[in-house]
Amino acid sequence: MRVEIVAIGTELLLGQIADTNSQWLGEQLAAHGITSHFHQHVGDNHERIVATLRTALSRSDAVITCGGLGPTQDDITRAAIAEIMGVPLERDERIVDVIRTMFERRGRDMPENNLLQAEVPRGATPIDQVRGTAPGLICPVGDQVIYAVPGVPYEMSEMFERSIIPDVIARERAAGRQAVITSRVLRTWGASESGLAEALAERIKILEGSEELTLAFLASGIEGIKVRMTARGRDHAHALEILRHEEAHVRAAIESAYGDVIFGVDDETMEHSLAQELVARSLTLAVAESVTGGLVSSRLVNVPGASAWYRGALVSYASDVKFDLLRVTPGPVVSATAVQEMADGVRQLLGSDVGLAITGVAGPESQDGQAPGTVFVGISLRGVTHHSKFSLPGDRPRIRQYSSISALQALRQILRQGW
Amino acid sequence: MRVEIVAIGTELLLGQIADTNSQWLGEQLAAHGITSHFHQHVGDNHERIVATLRTALSRSDAVITCGGLGPTQDDITRAAIAEIMGVPLERDERIVDVIRTMFERRGRDMPENNLLQAEVPRGATPIDQVRGTAPGLICPVGDQVIYAVPGVPYEMSEMFERSIIPDVIARERAAGRQAVITSRVLRTWGASESGLAEALAERIKILEGSEELTLAFLASGIEGIKVRMTARGRDHAHALEILRHEEAHVRAAIESAYGDVIFGVDDETMEHSLAQELVARSLTLAVAESVTGGLVSSRLVNVPGASAWYRGALVSYASDVKFDLLRVTPGPVVSATAVQEMADGVRQLLGSDVGLAITGVAGPESQDGQAPGTVFVGISLRGVTHHSKFSLPGDRPRIRQYSSISALQALRQILRQGW
Repeated sequence: MRVEIVAIGTELLLGQIADTNSQWLGEQLAAHGITSHFHQHVGDNHERIVATLRTALSRSDAVITCGGLGPTQDDITRAAIAEIMGVPLERDERIVDVIRTMFERRGRDMPENNLLQAEVPRGATPIDQVRGTAPGLICPVGDQVIYAVPGVPYEMSEMFERSIIPDVIARERAAGRQAVITSRVLRTWGASESGLAEALAERIKILEGSEELTLAFLASGIEGIKVRMTARGRDHAHALEILRHEEAHVRAAIESAYGDVIFGVDDETMEHSLAQELVARSLTLAVAESVTGGLVSSRLVNVPGASAWYRGALVSYASDVKFDLLRVTPGPVVSATAVQEMADGVRQLLGSDVGLAITGVAGPESQDGQAPGTVFVGISLRGVTHHSKFSLPGDRPRIRQYSSISALQALRQILRQGW
Repeated sequence: MRVEIVAIGTELLLGQIADTNSQWLGEQLAAHGITSHFHQHVGDNHERIVATLRTALSRSDAVITCGGLGPTQDDITRAAIAEIMGVPLERDERIVDVIRTMFERRGRDMPENNLLQAEVPRGATPIDQVRGTAPGLICPVGDQVIYAVPGVPYEMSEMFERSIIPDVIARERAAGRQAVITSRVLRTWGASESGLAEALAERIKILEGSEELTLAFLASGIEGIKVRMTARGRDHAHALEILRHEEAHVRAAIESAYGDVIFGVDDETMEHSLAQELVARSLTLAVAESVTGGLVSSRLVNVPGASAWYRGALVSYASDVKFDLLRVTPGPVVSATAVQEMADGVRQLLGSDVGLAITGVAGPESQDGQAPGTVFVGISLRGVTHHSKFSLPGDRPRIRQYSSISALQALRQILRQGW
């Protein structure tokens, strides 16, 4: 069954609010194995709403509209749906009573315009409102259906879970269709999106046109490059089994091409993943930052319980701070020597087991003969030091963000190598 | 001119990422007086992308597509547009060279599938890529046009501002639609959105239904709460004159109600604004961070030329780091005394004129008898110390972000008070 989402409201077109409803609904539908091929946004205009609904019904089995069910003059979704159904709007006195009672409970009279919310297209079934004043609607259109819910996210989600998804699933069953879609994301850092695609070219070829499994790539900036596997199974267990099997293939292909670049699964961030490696080895960490200016540190404190292993950071932006506090040998500060001295220096200054240091050139100008994007990462573990050099793309903010995740990945990988 | 936005990517339909691009583009187009009646989301499927573009061209003058221009097998926007144009895709060797050079600069070989990104529909004009590897496209379709940009927001926005909006405006002029729309944003921190609306209630009432001028509010998290004035004039000079006149009213209303809360105009960030105050007084700055974990410092280094006035920061996450390095008196570390000692300590440790310190409780648990959201900001200027206390709303990340901008605003205001 194909369900199309139509978000209604001029404020969406003007970008005054974000359409979080379509995203949430798409995610919920997918989790139930329901396909959604299209989403649309349309403003508060009767002709355009009607036209948008006709387009949706021409290519999908069901439509969910969000918004335009309120009590004001620009809430015209009910009328548009009535026109599609070819029926009049009729006032539902039961709904009037419910709304009036709500106002009475708050010790207020019901403004007359709330009567608008009691208008129901003939033949439609209201979805009782439990969180707001606007009821939802289930509107049959031949053997198709339009579900109408308010645009307020927490009213919308409650009606979706209580009334819409059960109705959709019942229709799926009636049509003899049942499937569960589940997906898993592998987060990587250290290989380009095109590089990953090349490493997985064979899998992608095998899966071409597969109804059961799809692979997709998602570049997510400082969250890394994600590989998403989406499986469609008879039931949840079956879908998970498909994912488990595919994950083994994908990990093998990526790791044989690029090594230990997969740092997390689903919502696991790089800092969470690194924290686990530190905790497993009972190591404390201190950071010395130059080019990143505190970004690495600000990511580390996002990990719950960071105080157990995180000591703190010195942002040595001025060179003499590196020389005086980190005891870096005066000279070029964007170099392999300097970054290792920084790492060892901050380890001693803040009294940690591990010191992690980042120095580099954010640009636009070169520094110490190094081009913008050149970044050195230094690691000191109980006095033994190590360094890596990166050439990163982008403008100043990007170079800083990529430097941060690269530094965290470098430490994570070195710890896992048992160094 | 009606411009329709088509966001392409199955991950949008599955709700795996939010479509922030359509919102941003809708806002930008509106600010330029360009109408957008519809937005659509479609997955990575050739037939459906083509059908969606045909629908869009049937009701809009121009279409902006976001996404599907990457190097992987599921990036098929180029082919779909070529079909709409009825032309073949041709490889642009100049683009190949640009991409190959990008990889060489990073010391990597270019994976072959990047050649996909050099495919251009015959008759289309590439938009050079400056932030990523994928170029954009300007594709004439009769007297209509399809603009194609990557889905990565910071690549998309750069191409929109550099190439698309100028082309749209040129077409508006050619069509004799000359009204120029210009907007100006005042950035504030220290008053709530509803508080600002109340202070400006009279202006909003006066401007109700005005064709010439509109006021809007935009809560932008750590970028503060924005008041946007949008003016429609005969020409640029006229629009600017309307803005200049309105800005005086708005500033007067806000400042008489909340004082010096307007810190910037348009793209001017809090850190840029603070930097100007420091430079004007030839003062250098050092920061001590606890609850914010490096966020404040990472914002300061975004200011070009920060090295002229910024010394660096100590992130004293562990309490004993505060005691040992910042010479804070052992005891509660979330207190007015501690934050002032931190500010003076980091000023001396890093040898700056001004020390700025932040300590507080990000939650969920209380600390030192202080509730989550309690944040102390300390300032030390050549030994004279000052502190402010804030109670901030939100979860851990939000409390950290609000703490950062509040600390920067506190220092900015104190410097301007000639303290």
